[in-house]
Amino acid sequence: MKKIFFTPGPTQLYESVPLYIKEAAEKNICSISHRGREFQDIFQHAASGLKKLLNVPNNFNIFFLSSATEAMERIIGNCVERHSFHFVNGEFSRRFFATAQELKKSPEKIEAEPWEELDFKARIPENAELVCFTQNETSTGAAVEMDNIYKIKKENPEKLVAIDIVSSVPYVNVDYTMIDCAFFSVQKGFGMPAGLGIIIANESAIEKSRLLAGKNLSIGSYHSFISLLEYAKKSQTPETPNVLGIFLLGKIAEELNKKGISNIRKETEEKADVIYNFFDNHGSCKPFIKNRGIRSKTVITIDVGDSQATIKKLAEHGLIVGAGYKNYKDSQIRLANFPMHKIEDVKRMLEII
Amino acid sequence: MKKIFFTPGPTQLYESVPLYIKEAAEKNICSISHRGREFQDIFQHAASGLKKLLNVPNNFNIFFLSSATEAMERIIGNCVERHSFHFVNGEFSRRFFATAQELKKSPEKIEAEPWEELDFKARIPENAELVCFTQNETSTGAAVEMDNIYKIKKENPEKLVAIDIVSSVPYVNVDYTMIDCAFFSVQKGFGMPAGLGIIIANESAIEKSRLLAGKNLSIGSYHSFISLLEYAKKSQTPETPNVLGIFLLGKIAEELNKKGISNIRKETEEKADVIYNFFDNHGSCKPFIKNRGIRSKTVITIDVGDSQATIKKLAEHGLIVGAGYKNYKDSQIRLANFPMHKIEDVKRMLEII
Repeated sequence: MKKIFFTPGPTQLYESVPLYIKEAAEKNICSISHRGREFQDIFQHAASGLKKLLNVPNNFNIFFLSSATEAMERIIGNCVERHSFHFVNGEFSRRFFATAQELKKSPEKIEAEPWEELDFKARIPENAELVCFTQNETSTGAAVEMDNIYKIKKENPEKLVAIDIVSSVPYVNVDYTMIDCAFFSVQKGFGMPAGLGIIIANESAIEKSRLLAGKNLSIGSYHSFISLLEYAKKSQTPETPNVLGIFLLGKIAEELNKKGISNIRKETEEKADVIYNFFDNHGSCKPFIKNRGIRSKTVITIDVGDSQATIKKLAEHGLIVGAGYKNYKDSQIRLANFPMHKIEDVKRMLEII
Repeated sequence: MKKIFFTPGPTQLYESVPLYIKEAAEKNICSISHRGREFQDIFQHAASGLKKLLNVPNNFNIFFLSSATEAMERIIGNCVERHSFHFVNGEFSRRFFATAQELKKSPEKIEAEPWEELDFKARIPENAELVCFTQNETSTGAAVEMDNIYKIKKENPEKLVAIDIVSSVPYVNVDYTMIDCAFFSVQKGFGMPAGLGIIIANESAIEKSRLLAGKNLSIGSYHSFISLLEYAKKSQTPETPNVLGIFLLGKIAEELNKKGISNIRKETEEKADVIYNFFDNHGSCKPFIKNRGIRSKTVITIDVGDSQATIKKLAEHGLIVGAGYKNYKDSQIRLANFPMHKIEDVKRMLEII
């Protein structure tokens, strides 16, 4: 039976991924030198395709890493001397905060319960160098309106702002002039095999890493922003990277650009409406996030009572959905709503539930 | 024209890689959860296959990272409080040393010219916590006899020993009871797509990272040895890893185990003899490394005068070889001699030269 994965990541691959892998094999993409012209073209194709798709200004750099988890470490390591500040409302924002602790910084945080709105009027500590948002909490399906982030940046223009868009990209519409760093991995909204993380960073973020290096502080080695930038200028990476992943990302970005980001956003919202409407009107299965203002369009969490029974029933029809995260494992399911998920499959899933 | 890559990495893929990728697609390997049973089986298959192939004792752990360059950072970060000591005779051993500097340690080194034997009688500083060897210098084709490393470990049993076997694995025969850490990446002797690095670390290496953590020093975040071990015990990784890479590594290790490591070593030595004999008796193209005691069997560097002309001539026959590294780019070629390279293709290449 053909399976369709509605899991929040790793998830369903884009239908064309196997074709692109075949193309990569024919072109010996996995054997070419990562210091040669052919790789530089692959790097540029992926970076420029991403910039076009996400409307990233020219003063931002695209850095290729191995995971979003790595991106957290590199952003904290390169943008924070002592103090970061974190908006925490779930497991991944908690992970971002913990990363700063593990790197022996002195982070502070403001917390909200997963189903509550964060307090965006909270005072940001004066000594905070970096303000960190998990724009879309993959663990709970709570999202932060970008306007709340812009407001904080406007009030704190001297502070850097980093956003985790792991499970909302490419849907989320970011005004990059109002943030300094964004990061994600490709096994969610880009429908690709895992093993590639992306940081989109502006000159201010890189300037900060230079400042730390100037103070003789460690900003890491091969994946410091300074090292990443030095190689990115040559359309290369410091290490031998996941070349196949970068090749595939260029192809997927090209495909999404052909479709058009506004169409992708419109379809995502339509599918999200269908799903939320269904569960808002369901007798027993209800959206976990009641506050419509913080409902994610791309990761939708449903209280189903017995998650294993629901997961099993759907699996019998070839539909794979995620369990709730950690404490919610037994009572919730999580549904991804990414660009590769088709409305007809969404409807089929809802009919079975 | 079908190409064959004799480049030292990325290099020729194993012939069966496309088949395994097809199998991965049929089994939805790139969509499954990295927290589920199916992934745990993939992790175990790769780890146990590697341990069998390389004869790794049970008190060692296999950690999956993203590159050998990352492995250097993690080993220095987790095994060194202040002082590492490095045997440096080429660009990659220099990179290992530079990594320690970038992480604000105080490394020391002993250097030799690329064509000279390192001085293994040199006094290792008393304060050195970790002694680092690049067992096979990919940049020059100089190799370190394992006996020299064992001797130093015997004389310094309280110091940790780390070895870079990036371009000699799986050929190099390591007695793991005489070292503490080894690392490599998979796009060389394992003939796989790049994007996966491996650390093989024993309990002493992990104990050292616990000691540093106990002193409230940073040992990194998600890829600290403590975090890697915590997840490895569950056959998982801290982050969503390169699942396809781990799947492929398990398959390749299984294939190499079927062939038998002693056959692989014998074939490698036979091919190396053919290559060195040819160039030792060639009129103008000569092995760069004259000292037979330090000649690598797996990366063979030849002074050809005009490397671009040789590379071009071979490319016309579909044979892709590497240029010399950095300063030797214009005058040398580098030939990889990995398990997937066939004797008949080696002979064809030599005939053309």
